[in-house]
Amino acid sequence: MARECLKHPLVEKLVQCEIDERVVELSKKYFPSMASSYQNEKLELIVGDGYKYLTELEDESFDVIITDSSDPKGPAVCLFEKEYYQLLEKKLSKNGIICCQAESIWFDLDFIANLLNVNRKIFEKVAYASTMTCTYPSGQIGFLICSKDPEAQLDKPIHRLNEDKLGLRYYTYEVHRSAFVLPRFVQKKLYGEAK
Amino acid sequence: MARECLKHPLVEKLVQCEIDERVVELSKKYFPSMASSYQNEKLELIVGDGYKYLTELEDESFDVIITDSSDPKGPAVCLFEKEYYQLLEKKLSKNGIICCQAESIWFDLDFIANLLNVNRKIFEKVAYASTMTCTYPSGQIGFLICSKDPEAQLDKPIHRLNEDKLGLRYYTYEVHRSAFVLPRFVQKKLYGEAK
Repeated sequence: MARECLKHPLVEKLVQCEIDERVVELSKKYFPSMASSYQNEKLELIVGDGYKYLTELEDESFDVIITDSSDPKGPAVCLFEKEYYQLLEKKLSKNGIICCQAESIWFDLDFIANLLNVNRKIFEKVAYASTMTCTYPSGQIGFLICSKDPEAQLDKPIHRLNEDKLGLRYYTYEVHRSAFVLPRFVQKKLYGEAK
Repeated sequence: MARECLKHPLVEKLVQCEIDERVVELSKKYFPSMASSYQNEKLELIVGDGYKYLTELEDESFDVIITDSSDPKGPAVCLFEKEYYQLLEKKLSKNGIICCQAESIWFDLDFIANLLNVNRKIFEKVAYASTMTCTYPSGQIGFLICSKDPEAQLDKPIHRLNEDKLGLRYYTYEVHRSAFVLPRFVQKKLYGEAK
């Protein structure tokens, strides 16, 4: 994920928190093309608990915070709780955005609906975006996207990227937009009849 | 599928070809809500080979022909061959549209690219549309959509349906549109750089 983020021409610095050092070591050994961002000078790698890192962080804020967590079971439960999202909000810059792993519509729709409702009390704009994940159960997973900017249009990318130059294989402007188009039963559950 | 098609207010008649009578019997017995369309007077059920049915059909044409086939292995191979698509084209009305099961981008991209190329020689407009299928391997499958109308915009529904009144759970105008938005590597493979 760090590798892909670092392709964005506006990224000046990226801090990656990885709780398990072995993940880093084994990535370097067996997935060198994925681990290539560890050589990028814009990347600061913190081996440790991301939650703790943010809590202890003083006088620094981020424009974007991405939480690529495992499922809300066991050690990752705390990354799906109100207090965590409040912490993210505090550590975001003025118009900052968060993007958090937010489970599958096919297994967890009630959970997702609740996640959005919790975050509607914390952020100005809240949405669920969907993507294909052929190696995950059901083939679908989604992101919770929240912004502190009341004018934010989460489904409209601010910048048009040069997809060719950046070597993007999946993402396009249109893919971004259509990630927010959801099956009708999902749309109704998450946003009600109105939208 | 017949049940969903019959929801469309403009459908006057629907012919369903099912090669295996047991599928019909067991649907009625164990999935009565799915089999409800067998009571619809607009439905004509043909128990037999759909390919043969079309070949023997005289002086009749369809506005839409949907082929909900199994994978291109064994008995269904013929439903993915040039001769079959040529037959469909012959049995379509002037601006008719076909919709055929067209495999998954994650397993069959070369196959899909070839399918589109074959049909570009038969139809005026050819496209691949994607949908989620959480119970199928990879969670994704697609449709080959072809039209005889050179002005057709396959990704733009001609009619806005009353989704509420029709009791649609998945389909919306926006879902239709975004079905044609494909990951960049798929877009490039199927349509080249240009589009």
